[in-house]
Formats: sequence, structure tokens, C-alpha cells
Amino acid sequence: MIRFNCDYSEGAHPVILEKLAQTNLEQTPGYGQDPYCRQAAELIKTLCQTPEADVHFLCGGTQTNLTVIAAMLRPYQCVISPDSGHINVHEAGAIEATGHRILAVPEENGKITAQQIARVCQAHWQDDNPEFAPQPKLVYLSFPTEYGTLYSKKELSDIRRVCDEHNLYLFMDGARLGYGLTAEGNDLTLPEIAACCDIFYIGGTKLGALLGEAVVIVNPKLQKDFRYFMKQKGAILAKGRLLGIQFVGLLENGLYFKLAEHANKMAAMIRHACEEAGWKMWYDSPTNQQFPVVPDDALKELEQEYAFAHFKRLDRNHTAIRICTSWATREEDVRQLIADIKRVSAK
Amino acid sequence: MIRFNCDYSEGAHPVILEKLAQTNLEQTPGYGQDPYCRQAAELIKTLCQTPEADVHFLCGGTQTNLTVIAAMLRPYQCVISPDSGHINVHEAGAIEATGHRILAVPEENGKITAQQIARVCQAHWQDDNPEFAPQPKLVYLSFPTEYGTLYSKKELSDIRRVCDEHNLYLFMDGARLGYGLTAEGNDLTLPEIAACCDIFYIGGTKLGALLGEAVVIVNPKLQKDFRYFMKQKGAILAKGRLLGIQFVGLLENGLYFKLAEHANKMAAMIRHACEEAGWKMWYDSPTNQQFPVVPDDALKELEQEYAFAHFKRLDRNHTAIRICTSWATREEDVRQLIADIKRVSAK
Amino acid sequence: MIRFNCDYSEGAHPVILEKLAQTNLEQTPGYGQDPYCRQAAELIKTLCQTPEADVHFLCGGTQTNLTVIAAMLRPYQCVISPDSGHINVHEAGAIEATGHRILAVPEENGKITAQQIARVCQAHWQDDNPEFAPQPKLVYLSFPTEYGTLYSKKELSDIRRVCDEHNLYLFMDGARLGYGLTAEGNDLTLPEIAACCDIFYIGGTKLGALLGEAVVIVNPKLQKDFRYFMKQKGAILAKGRLLGIQFVGLLENGLYFKLAEHANKMAAMIRHACEEAGWKMWYDSPTNQQFPVVPDDALKELEQEYAFAHFKRLDRNHTAIRICTSWATREEDVRQLIADIKRVSAK
Amino acid sequence: MIRFNCDYSEGAHPVILEKLAQTNLEQTPGYGQDPYCRQAAELIKTLCQTPEADVHFLCGGTQTNLTVIAAMLRPYQCVISPDSGHINVHEAGAIEATGHRILAVPEENGKITAQQIARVCQAHWQDDNPEFAPQPKLVYLSFPTEYGTLYSKKELSDIRRVCDEHNLYLFMDGARLGYGLTAEGNDLTLPEIAACCDIFYIGGTKLGALLGEAVVIVNPKLQKDFRYFMKQKGAILAKGRLLGIQFVGLLENGLYFKLAEHANKMAAMIRHACEEAGWKMWYDSPTNQQFPVVPDDALKELEQEYAFAHFKRLDRNHTAIRICTSWATREEDVRQLIADIKRVSAK
Repeated sequence: MIRFNCDYSEGAHPVILEKLAQTNLEQTPGYGQDPYCRQAAELIKTLCQTPEADVHFLCGGTQTNLTVIAAMLRPYQCVISPDSGHINVHEAGAIEATGHRILAVPEENGKITAQQIARVCQAHWQDDNPEFAPQPKLVYLSFPTEYGTLYSKKELSDIRRVCDEHNLYLFMDGARLGYGLTAEGNDLTLPEIAACCDIFYIGGTKLGALLGEAVVIVNPKLQKDFRYFMKQKGAILAKGRLLGIQFVGLLENGLYFKLAEHANKMAAMIRHACEEAGWKMWYDSPTNQQFPVVPDDALKELEQEYAFAHFKRLDRNHTAIRICTSWATREEDVRQLIADIKRVSAK
Repeated sequence: MIRFNCDYSEGAHPVILEKLAQTNLEQTPGYGQDPYCRQAAELIKTLCQTPEADVHFLCGGTQTNLTVIAAMLRPYQCVISPDSGHINVHEAGAIEATGHRILAVPEENGKITAQQIARVCQAHWQDDNPEFAPQPKLVYLSFPTEYGTLYSKKELSDIRRVCDEHNLYLFMDGARLGYGLTAEGNDLTLPEIAACCDIFYIGGTKLGALLGEAVVIVNPKLQKDFRYFMKQKGAILAKGRLLGIQFVGLLENGLYFKLAEHANKMAAMIRHACEEAGWKMWYDSPTNQQFPVVPDDALKELEQEYAFAHFKRLDRNHTAIRICTSWATREEDVRQLIADIKRVSAK
Repeated sequence: MIRFNCDYSEGAHPVILEKLAQTNLEQTPGYGQDPYCRQAAELIKTLCQTPEADVHFLCGGTQTNLTVIAAMLRPYQCVISPDSGHINVHEAGAIEATGHRILAVPEENGKITAQQIARVCQAHWQDDNPEFAPQPKLVYLSFPTEYGTLYSKKELSDIRRVCDEHNLYLFMDGARLGYGLTAEGNDLTLPEIAACCDIFYIGGTKLGALLGEAVVIVNPKLQKDFRYFMKQKGAILAKGRLLGIQFVGLLENGLYFKLAEHANKMAAMIRHACEEAGWKMWYDSPTNQQFPVVPDDALKELEQEYAFAHFKRLDRNHTAIRICTSWATREEDVRQLIADIKRVSAK
Repeated sequence: MIRFNCDYSEGAHPVILEKLAQTNLEQTPGYGQDPYCRQAAELIKTLCQTPEADVHFLCGGTQTNLTVIAAMLRPYQCVISPDSGHINVHEAGAIEATGHRILAVPEENGKITAQQIARVCQAHWQDDNPEFAPQPKLVYLSFPTEYGTLYSKKELSDIRRVCDEHNLYLFMDGARLGYGLTAEGNDLTLPEIAACCDIFYIGGTKLGALLGEAVVIVNPKLQKDFRYFMKQKGAILAKGRLLGIQFVGLLENGLYFKLAEHANKMAAMIRHACEEAGWKMWYDSPTNQQFPVVPDDALKELEQEYAFAHFKRLDRNHTAIRICTSWATREEDVRQLIADIKRVSAK
């Protein structure tokens, strides 16, 4: 069984394991106050061209999302999110458990628009008693989105402008950031993203690390006391170096981006094979997640040997599935899958 | 500089790193549903003699404490803890952030007694309006305590009895469980602890792992839906195998207990040297944490070469410090420290 | 200016003020433990034919909703509500502030169906990882709905059945319960409602009282420790008798239902006038809230003398407004309004 | 049975009931946006000499405390309170339910000192990892205290100074404020209190109103968005005028202070009788709460006819009780009690 169902089926990239082994017996201070966390933070600030940013390392996406959002909002404020947003769909109510409503806005291709955000704010502030509804204060986006799609530079700038007009913060979930930055057709750079966001993160878990998300707090107003929030949510690792060392490994020689490129390339090959087979793509994703619409007969046969994620039952005979590649995806496995797609679709 | 200030200054025991490397490219399901987590859970249930228990793997102590306590209580209930308890002193209000009061009871030697717990409950229920105060429902203990001391079998059984009488759950923080189980003078076994507690955990972070705490839910009533709580608190790792593999490594050949014994032995050597030097021990700990009262002159000199944790300023000339050993403490470093203690105390 | 914008523009029905004056200097225990609260509770249990129910008195709708919902759910559970539900639209995120998601379902005529509820539950439990989303556990309905409409006996029974099938609680917001029970075409009785719900309340604030909502806990499993929840949310009045006395006044001679009938009658007269004027009703409400679609010219003229609530801007020339009547609405004011509707619509 | 067990055994002062009756049929906007709330707010701002303050009306003490404290703190901050503080003893964990720890400091005579507060802050900020404990940000005091005692002008100024030094807010619970302001020996005026506090409230429930607490937000930084907090906690009454009208009644002719004086005078008479009887006073209170130490025989006899609150069992034969007077206490009842105290103590 070869797994294409997600991008966290393996351990870490070997370079990271080596780095952990090399540094294993060094003694360092705990709680992220070690030289490796500092070095990783410096690397990130340089890459983002944000010398004044604060950088913190957390363990996973849900933990990061709930800690960041709780830190950005007063108790009566809410977060605007695409209805397909990870916080709205896959986090067990973690945001509400911190006391905040998610104001879900209908996505298109996994994205929401500046105009939709503006309308939400106008509706709130035009009410006779705005205080009878949670106050919009924060926009949550993912790049790439849950469906592998990307905001363009224009779309993101428009959203930033609306945020400024309506006094909103902008928070980007970058659990798969690298896949987006290296995708074909992407027109955003890391410094441009950093300049647009109040806060965002660079995801490690889904891109080569054992675990780890690097939160970049660009807006100085949000930097104060962030470690209190982290500690209170159980998000400061005793052996914080575990995260710092991994991000050094990923970032010091551009490994992070090379791994992302590889995964995107593998995904594009699979996409091409699906299209050749006449299978429609449910979303038009240039990144490591692909959503082909597969006839059930073909799917059943493929699933003898491959694991996919079932995304959506479309009709009596078709299912949209999610195929993920990652740093660990082997080209030989992809070629075998392609051959099998060709075979089962030819029947 | 040699660090004795805590037991998480290094990475993981080499056996664990090897195991991570060996399994690195295997593909497994995510979220703790992999074969390694299952194997580790089986090992733990066997060691605890609790075939019906549920076992879950979380990342660190604060995360575990807040997730478990939030899962055990209704919103109006509170947790009884020694005032020195980790949840009361070192967790940034993480428990209150889940909505619950910590009812802190004065510790002696880091411990509280069955009688103290009973008195708290009697006071609550004898009030004319018990509903005007949070309802005691849970006792939180650490084994070993924050001060390295241990509950005896008699003390723990008495507490269990009081819990039964007052309808309380018992939750043991075992962040350093191994050090306690292998300590000289300890009369409790792991199965006895499991039989006494409704829930407890076996700490990995402070005993050889990169990170990881294994929660054992003994009471069937508390098993239901625990993964919802974990997910909501950001406590389910995508690559959950990272935790499972480590606990397999620690437990399959008794490594966990050997490492604890080593640390305890190193601590005893240091303790002996302190006593020889005429330094009083602030607590009588048989485990890996020692609290000698050190004259400031001597301390200043030692701190040229060693890192300790300052525990308490006692008078104008004396400080109680905390010295920690761990699986990674080298006997040669201990011997050097002992020689230096002898030297500075001889002046 | 005559106010038709809501049903809480005046104080209390005179009978209630008299009763408060008569009993004013009696000394009673505080916190709802007085004879009047007991008497009111007995009246309610008799009217509902629920001798085993618990009855508690709270101050207002939002307070009641947040206290009840927090009491019914575990932290990871969520409440299903029509998207137009009061908790979803007018309560400033009060439910989320207790940690719970509102799972909003699209309403039709202010109502949701048994089938919609079933689908939500099926979707949750069929997911591979149900624990990655909040668990549906409670259905929140209003009777009458926010739009003045009513569930039929058949609709409510179907919902109850689906609740039983999916292990859900049913909670009815009865802030305007009396208006519904006395409405033309209603086929539900108070005992039938009580038999269908796990918990519901009889609203006083919007039906003749200064303030006050009487919560009826029918399901014995939900009765335990409810006063802890009330106290923790600041929902136990020191002078609880203020609530008990009012409900005695409202219920001992059927005043509550007479007042509701009066308001419904006044509303029907206004509705008739609107229809005569050729104005469409946006919702088909048999209760004290009416939603005529009014041409802007006419509206502007009427608003010289009357206050309405603007419900929805429909097109360039029309607005749906909300007209409320209450126990305090005077027939002469209604007749004057009707004359003016005739006048402005005749132009 | 004559009740001296609390100061909320009766309804409201007759002037208030009259005012409610007179205004009953007037139509006003809801939610505290009526002319009476505005008038009451103006009266209060004038009395406090705080023309720039915001004034809001809430229902009761616990509701007010939890709403105000939640509004003043970020999630990781805590509130310093005397261990005898109402929020720490009588509110069912309401503060913790909003996510915040109460940092309880040992009281003396119900009070804490500037020095104690300073020490708490110093301890926090001197820690190596302050972020591992909740951050002190707010001091909660009651005037009078739970034991009827008063802070002097000097004591309160010292506390204010320490608050400024450590960047703390000061919040005064004035549930019984009038009793303190009119007490013999009190050297603080209402404007002085207003000048010292960031926020405080003037209690109505325990001083003549049916219910109601008037929150005065002096610090402009805390004024923003307070109504969101109120709404979210269910603390905005639909018929908000009920509160406004009562405070107009209490404050427009100084009634509030006359009622307080009366109660204090009644309490002083009882105190004198107790002292004559040779009964020690457990606290030295100049306000409407008295805490005599009563021999059990005498107590048993008195309790045939009077209700008191049992405060503390002192030894085998003595109990400290709490005797409360109020606006409604009749001098004839006090004289009868005094005679009975004389009688039972003479045996």
C-alpha cells in the first residue's frame, strides 16, 4: 500500500534527523531559549525581510491557530474565515473553545474575496446595535488553501486594503506555505506575504519536519506577551530546540523550498495523468494537493494499492478524491500510480 | 558550563533517535492511529496491568494537564492541588483558562494528605449554599512531587479512599514517574498506582524522550470522547507516530526504568557530597531532584562552571538550589561536581 | 411617537406591580429560595404536567440561553440552531464565549426540519475522524421563532424523534412562548411541548414581566447542579423573589395567556390592514410579530408617528419591517395605526 | 421570625416602587438606551465628579464582577484579591470561568495592603520566566469589605500608587458602597474613590433597589466596547429602564445615603448591645454588618426569633455570627433584639 492520502505519512527529511543526532548531547536552555531557536528565528527574519518581527516555534497547526487567534482577539471579537477554512472544519471547535466565533464566509476555490470581507464588516457596523453580534476583527486565510489553490498578489493586496479600512488583522495559516511559494503561477514572495500579514506561519509538519510551525509576528502590537499565550495553551516545548534545530535544517540551505518543489512536481505529474485519463480536476490546484474526480470502478481498483483521501461523493458513480504528495514522495511510486491510472481508465 | 538546572537540557536517548531513523520512511496513518502508538499503548497496559485502559500520547506536561483536567470536570467543578503543584505554579493559568479554579492546599514536602482533601470537601458540602463555590471533583498530585518527594503506598491509598468517600477523581501527574518508581524507599509499583488513579501519565519529556507524555485513562467513565478533547486543545500530533515510536523505545526493554535509576544514582551521589559538605537538604528527596542549601560564596564559585536552578533565597547568606540529574548526566561530570563541592566547602 | 418596534417598551403589567408592592416588606430568604419562587415553580409544573421537573428563574433571554446551553454540553459538543436563531444573531457570541460552536442550519420561515438535523448528525458520525469536528449534542429552537412562526405538533415530534435517534438534547427558547401557545392555528399545548423538550423556558420579559424567564428542566439527567451553573454565570438574583412573585402574578389566574391573546389579536388587526393595503407579509406569522413589506414612501410617512424595527432592505423601494404588539398595546393606538396605513397606502 | 441574616430580605424602598409604577406605561427604547438610564448616569457622573466617565447598569454583584474583570484582562492576566474577596469565596468560580486566575492574598480585617500587592508583582516580574505564571494586572477590592471594614484614604492612595508603579488596574466592588461612604470614621468621599479607581460600582441590590449595580468606568481606555462584554455575558436587560429608574430614585434626592445612614445607625445600636453583653466583635466594622462572638446558649435562644448568618465556629462554645441591617430594618425590631440580647446574656 502506497499512501497518497496526506503529506505527513513519513517521519522527517533525513537532513533533519541527522541534525538532531549531531546536536543530541549538547546542553541547551529549555523552552525555546536555545541557540538553535535563535538561529532559526534569524534565518526566518532574513528570508521574510522582517528584521523587527518576532518568531516563535509551536508544534502543530491546530495548536498554532488557536494560540494565535486567542492572542489577537478580545473576548467579544470574531474571526472571519472561508467556510472551508481549517479552523472551521478540522479543529474540533478549538477556536470556539477559546471563546470566539468563526464567522464563516462562503469560499470559492477555497478562497474568499476582499469584497466579501468588506460586506461582513459593513453589515456589522451598520446594525443599530453592533454590540449584539461578535465584532469582526481578524481575517484568517490559508496559503495554499485547503484545496491547494493560491491567492494572487492582487487578491491578497486587496484583502490587506480592506483589513486596513475596517481595522482588521490578517492572519495567514501557512501550514503548507512552501508548496504555495514554489508553485507554478504563484506571484507572491515570502517578503510580500510578510508585508501583507500581521501574523503568519511557516509550516514544518507538512513539509519535512517531524513537527513544528514557525509563527512570524510582523505587527509589533501583537508581539507583546505572546509567550504567555503559548505557555497557557501548552504550546511551549520543554525541549524547544527540537523545533529550532529542524527549522535551521529546513531553511539554512533552502531545503524547505526544494522539498516543496519536488512535491509540486510529483503532483503535477499525477494531475497530468488524471487529465489524460479524462478525469476532471475538482479544483485547479498548482500545489501538492490534487482533487481528481474518479469513476468509482477505477477508484476501487486503485485503492487496492494506494491510499487516497475521499473528499466528496459527487454522484452515484463518481468521487472527488484528494491526492497528496510530499517531500517523501518517490518518483518511482508516482510513475507506478500514473501507469495504473492509465490502465484503469482505459478499461 | 555543565547544566544541572533541569532534566531536559539534552535531546533524546540515542536508542530513541535510532528508532526514529530506522522507521523514518515507513508510511503510517496520522494522528496517533499508527502501529507504533498501538504497540506502545499495549506495552503500557501490560506494564500497568490495566488491560481495559485507554492510552493516549500528548506532547508535554502543561498540554497534558490542561487537556486531562478539562476533560474530567464539568464547568463549575474545581481541582484540588498542592499549592506547590505544577498546575498552580508553572503553567501560566492554563487550568483557569479552561474555566476551572485550582483549589490550592498547603503542601508539606510537596505533598498533601487525605485529611486535607477530606476537610476541603466537608467545608464545601456543609455550606448552606454549596453552589456558591466551585465544587471539588478532582485531586491532582505529582509523583514524584515538584520537590522530588514521594507519596507512600499508605498515603496514596488513604487519598484514594477519601476520593471515593467524596466522589472525587484522582489524577496523577507523572511527568517524572520513572524517577519515583525506581527511587530508594519507594513502596509503590506501577500497577498499584494505576489501580489507585482514575487517570495518570507516564512522562517521557523529562525521562529520555524528545517529547511525549503517555496518558493512561483507567476509569472507563473518563475514556469516552477523549480524542475530541485532545483535538480541541491542539494535542493530536499529525505525525503521532513520533510519540508512539519513542515510548516503544523507552518501554520495550525497560530502558525507561534503567535511565531513571541512573539519574537517581547520580543525584544520590551529589546529595551525599552536599551532606558531607555540611549543607542541609531543603527537601528529603530520593529522586533526581536535590535541593541543597548552599552558602552564597560557595554557590558563586560553583556557578562559574555549573548551571543550577535557584529555588529559594533563605537568608542573607544562603540559597536553596535545585540540582537535577537525568538519563544524560555523565558520571564524570558528577564526580567533578562532587570534587568542586568538597573544594568550595572546605574554604 | 407610538412604539411598535418591540414587545418590551413598557414596564410590567399592573397586576405584577401591585403584587410587588403588596409583598414588598415581607422578609424572605434570598437567591430564589423564597416561598414565591416555590409557588411559581409549582404553578408551572402543574401547567406543564411535569411534576418531576425542576424550575429555575433567570433574568433575560441571553443569560438563560448561555446558562442552559453551557449546562447541557461537554466542552467539545456543539448546538444545532437555525441560522436565524437568537443565539446565532443577537447574542454577541455569548454561546461561543462559553466555548461552544453554534452549528447554524439554514432556516425556512425561521424553522429547521428534523431531516436537516439528521443530516448534520449523519455527516458528523460518518466522517473518518468525527473527533476533528465539534460533536452535535443539542438542538436549539424558538417557539415562536424569531419570525413569529410556529412549529406544528408534527414538526416538533419529528424533531424529537431525530433527537432520540442521534442522542441529542432538545432545548426550546420560549422567550415568547405565550404568544405561540395562544396563536390561531397552533396545535401544540404546553404539556406537549414539555413532553417533547429536555429543557425549555417560559418567557416573562417579553410578555408582561419587568424581567424574568422560567426555565423548566424536564430531563432529570440535566437537573443536577444547575444552580452551580446559574451562580457561575451571575444568574442567581439576590432578591430572587422578584422573579417568583412576577411569575405567580402571570400564571395564577391565566393572565399570561390572556395578555398573549390580546397581543396576537392586535397583531392580526395590523396584519389585516397591511394586507388590505396590498402589502405582502414577508413571513406568515400568527403571533405578535408581523413583517409587512412596506413601500418606502409609506414607511417614511408612518415613521413620523410610529417606531418600527427595520428588518430587511428588499429592493430600491421596499423594506420589510417588524411590527410588534404586546400586552401593553392599546387598541386605540392600533386603530390609529390602521387608519394611517389605509391613508398612506391610498395615495 | 425577624431576619438579620442579610441586607436583601425585602423588596425595594417604596420610593422606587412608586417610581416604577408612575413610569410604567411610558414607552422607551430598550437595552439601557432610555432617558432614565441617561438621567441616572448623569446623576452619578455629577456625584462622582467624573464628567468623562461611562456608566452602565447591571443586575447583580456576581454578574458585574465577572463582566468587568473579563473586560479588563487579557486571557493570561490575573486579578489580585483579598482571600476573603467575594469573587474568591461566593461566586462559584465565575471569574475562573471567564479564564482568569484569582491571585488570593491573605486579608487582615478583610483588607489587603499596598505592600502585599507590590510583593506579588515583584515576585512575578523577578522570576526567570514570568510567562510561566499568570500576569498580575488588576486589583480587586471591596468597599466596605466582606467584613464591613473600610479602607482609609491613606490605604487606598497607597494602593493606587502601587497600581501605578506596577501597571495594574484598580477595580472596587461597591456592592455596599453607600454603607461605607456614610460610616462613622470613613474619610473617603465618592469623588476621591472615583479618582482612585479605574472602574468601580455603586451597588443598588443591597441598598434599596430591587436589583441593580451602576458600573462607573473612569479610565477611558476601559470604556471602549464595554457593551459588547455586557451583551456577551447576558448582562444587558431588555427593559434596562428598570435599572435606570431605580438609580434615579435612589440618587436624585440623596435617598441612597440616607438609607445607608439608617442601616449603619441600626447596626451601631446592635453592636453597642453586644458589647454591653460582653460579646467581643470579631471584626471592627462601622457599617451595616456586625460580627459578634456569641455564646452558643445565647445564640440558640436568640435564633428562636431572629435569623442570623453563621460566620465561623470559633470554639466548642462560641460562634461568630453576622448581623446585617438595611434600609428596611425597623428600629422597633432592633430595640426588641437589643432587649433580647440583654436578656439572654444576663442568664
